[in-house]
Amino acid sequence: MIIDCHGHYTTAPAALEAWRKLQIAAIDDPARAPSRAALAIGDDEIRASLENAQLRMQRERGTDVTFFSPRASFMAHHIGNERTSLAWSQVCNDLVHRVCGLYPDNFVGVCQLPQSPGVRPENCIPELVRCVRELGMIGCNLNPDPSGGHWKEPPLTDRWWYPLYETMAELDVPAMVHVSTSCNPCFHATGAHYINADTTAFMQFLTSDLFRDFPTLRFIIPHGGGAAPYHWGRYRGIAQDLKRPPFAELLLKNVYFDTCVYHRPGIELLLKVVPADNILFASEMIGAVRGVDPETGHHYDDTRRYVDAIEWLPAEARQKIFEGNARRVFPRFGTRSARELNAAFH
Amino acid sequence: MIIDCHGHYTTAPAALEAWRKLQIAAIDDPARAPSRAALAIGDDEIRASLENAQLRMQRERGTDVTFFSPRASFMAHHIGNERTSLAWSQVCNDLVHRVCGLYPDNFVGVCQLPQSPGVRPENCIPELVRCVRELGMIGCNLNPDPSGGHWKEPPLTDRWWYPLYETMAELDVPAMVHVSTSCNPCFHATGAHYINADTTAFMQFLTSDLFRDFPTLRFIIPHGGGAAPYHWGRYRGIAQDLKRPPFAELLLKNVYFDTCVYHRPGIELLLKVVPADNILFASEMIGAVRGVDPETGHHYDDTRRYVDAIEWLPAEARQKIFEGNARRVFPRFGTRSARELNAAFH
Repeated sequence: MIIDCHGHYTTAPAALEAWRKLQIAAIDDPARAPSRAALAIGDDEIRASLENAQLRMQRERGTDVTFFSPRASFMAHHIGNERTSLAWSQVCNDLVHRVCGLYPDNFVGVCQLPQSPGVRPENCIPELVRCVRELGMIGCNLNPDPSGGHWKEPPLTDRWWYPLYETMAELDVPAMVHVSTSCNPCFHATGAHYINADTTAFMQFLTSDLFRDFPTLRFIIPHGGGAAPYHWGRYRGIAQDLKRPPFAELLLKNVYFDTCVYHRPGIELLLKVVPADNILFASEMIGAVRGVDPETGHHYDDTRRYVDAIEWLPAEARQKIFEGNARRVFPRFGTRSARELNAAFH
Repeated sequence: MIIDCHGHYTTAPAALEAWRKLQIAAIDDPARAPSRAALAIGDDEIRASLENAQLRMQRERGTDVTFFSPRASFMAHHIGNERTSLAWSQVCNDLVHRVCGLYPDNFVGVCQLPQSPGVRPENCIPELVRCVRELGMIGCNLNPDPSGGHWKEPPLTDRWWYPLYETMAELDVPAMVHVSTSCNPCFHATGAHYINADTTAFMQFLTSDLFRDFPTLRFIIPHGGGAAPYHWGRYRGIAQDLKRPPFAELLLKNVYFDTCVYHRPGIELLLKVVPADNILFASEMIGAVRGVDPETGHHYDDTRRYVDAIEWLPAEARQKIFEGNARRVFPRFGTRSARELNAAFH
C-alpha cells in the first residue's frame, strides 16, 4: 500500500474561489460577507474536479491514499483578520471533508488552521478540535509565517505556539509545516518561500528544546525538508558546534521529511542521508510543478518513480517510507484503512 | 592548482571588532566615531591571525589561493546608515588588502560593499571602484537583504540594482550573493538565513530577464546554491511551467555555484545535477562550521576531500571546478598568478 501524505485540493471547483473573492470584498463590511451555506458546490462538481485529476493520477501512478488538505497557496492567512481566516478555513475544511466522504478509499482529511498574523495560536484550537473530532481529520498544516513572507511571528519553537501544541499532543495529530503564498516580492511562493520555510523550520527545531517539552509532538517538513538534507553535513556540524545532542536524540523522534523532491538525484540524496524512519512518501500532486520532465517523459511530481528506481533501498525501508511511517506519524489513521476511518465520520 | 573562491577574514585581530564597537557606540554622535587611521593592527598581528588558521589549512588541505573577503556575518549592513557602512567597509576592505600584500601567493581580495537598507545601490559604486582599481580586488559580495532578515529591498533582478550592475559589468567583476547576520529571530544566520538567501536569489534569477539586459553579468550563489541543486527538478519544472527558456540559455551563462556543502552526498548531488562549467571550488573555511565530523575524522568544511572522492568526475571537469572556472568567472584574476596580481597593487 502506498500513502501519499501530502496532497492539497488544488483543483477545487471555481465556486470556492468565487466565495473567497466575495469574502475578501467584504472584509471591511462583514455584514456583506458570504455565509458558509452560500457556498453551493454539488457532489458532481466535486467528482468532476477530482476524477480526471488526483484520482486519475493515483490510479496511473499506483498510489492508494492521499492525506488531503485545502490548497496551501490559498490559505493566505495574511488576508483580513482572524474571523476572515476562521470562516475561510471552515469552508475549505468542510469541502475536503466532503471529498473524503465521496472517495473514502482515496482520501483522508488534513486541516487548514485559521491562523492570522499576530493572533495567538490559541485561536486555532476550536477549528483543529472540530476537524479532528467531528470531521475525522488526522493532522493539520501549520503556517510558520502567516504574514506571507514577512516573518513576523515568533519561531515555531517559541512558547507563543505552546497552547496549540498542547492540543496537538492531546489529539495526537502531527502538523505539516507549510507556508502559504508570498506577499514579499523577494520570494517566489513555491520556488523560494516554500523551500525557505522548510529550511527555516528545521533550523528552529535544531536550536531549541521544544521536543523536551513536547516529547510526542511531530512535524513533517515538506518538500523534502527544504535544503536540510542537501546540507545535512552543515546541519550536523552547526549542531555540534552549538553543543546540541546528536540528531537522533535532538529531533529525529519528532521531525519527518516528505519525498516532494522532483528529480531522482534529489530523492536519492534524501534517502541516503535521512534515516528511513524519518521519510514519508508524498508527491504534492497536483501542485507546484505540473509539467512533464522532457528528460524522463514523466511528470516531475511523479515521485513514486524516483523512489522505485533506487535499487539499493532495502524492502523494509521502502515499506516504511510508502506506508509504515505515515501510519505511525498519523496515529489517528494508524492501522485502519481509509474507508474504515472515513466511515466513522460520514 | 586549486582556487578556493569563497573565504572570509573570520579570524581578524580583535582590534577590528573593537573599532567596530566604537563606531556603533558613536552612531548617534558621528563626531565621536573612530577614524580609519585609528585602527591600529600590526603586520605581525595579521600574520598571527592567519598562520595557524587559513594558511595552515591551505597547506594541510593542499589548496593554493583563496579569494578572500571581509567577514560576511560582520558586514551587518543594517547597522547605522550608509556613512556607517562606508567607513566600516573601507576599514574591512583595507585590512583584506593588507592580507593580500603580506601573503601574495595565498590570497586575492574580494570586497565588501557599503550597502545600507533602503539606500540606492549607487552608493556602493565608489567603494567598488576603489577596491577594484586601487586595491586589485577581483569581485564583490552583494547582500540581497541589507536589512538582515526582513527582506525589504527589491529583488536582485529589479532595476533598483542596475546602476551597480553597470559598474560591475564595466569593471568585469562578479558578485557573490551573500547575506550577513540575521536580525530576525525566525532565521538562524548561518543555518537558515544564508541558505534561504541563496535559494531566494536563484529563484529571482530564474523568473527574470536580468541577463538579457546584462549578458556578461556573473553571480556566484554560495553554499552550494542553497537548496537549488537538491530541488533541481522542481526548478526546471517551475521554469518550464512559466514558459521560461531552458537553464542553459536562461541563467547558466551567468549564475555559478560554489562547493560549500559539508558532506559528501551533498557534493555528489551538486556535481551530478549542475554542469561542471557552473561549479567553483570553495570551502568558506574558517566559517560557519568549524568542527570535525566524527563520521569521517575530518573537518566538515574540508570540501576538497569530498570533491576528490567523487571517482566518476572526469579530470577535465575537476580542473574546471578547482581552477578553470574561477579564472573565467573572475577575469581580473584571469590567467595570472596571485603573486602577479598582488604585485601590481602593493
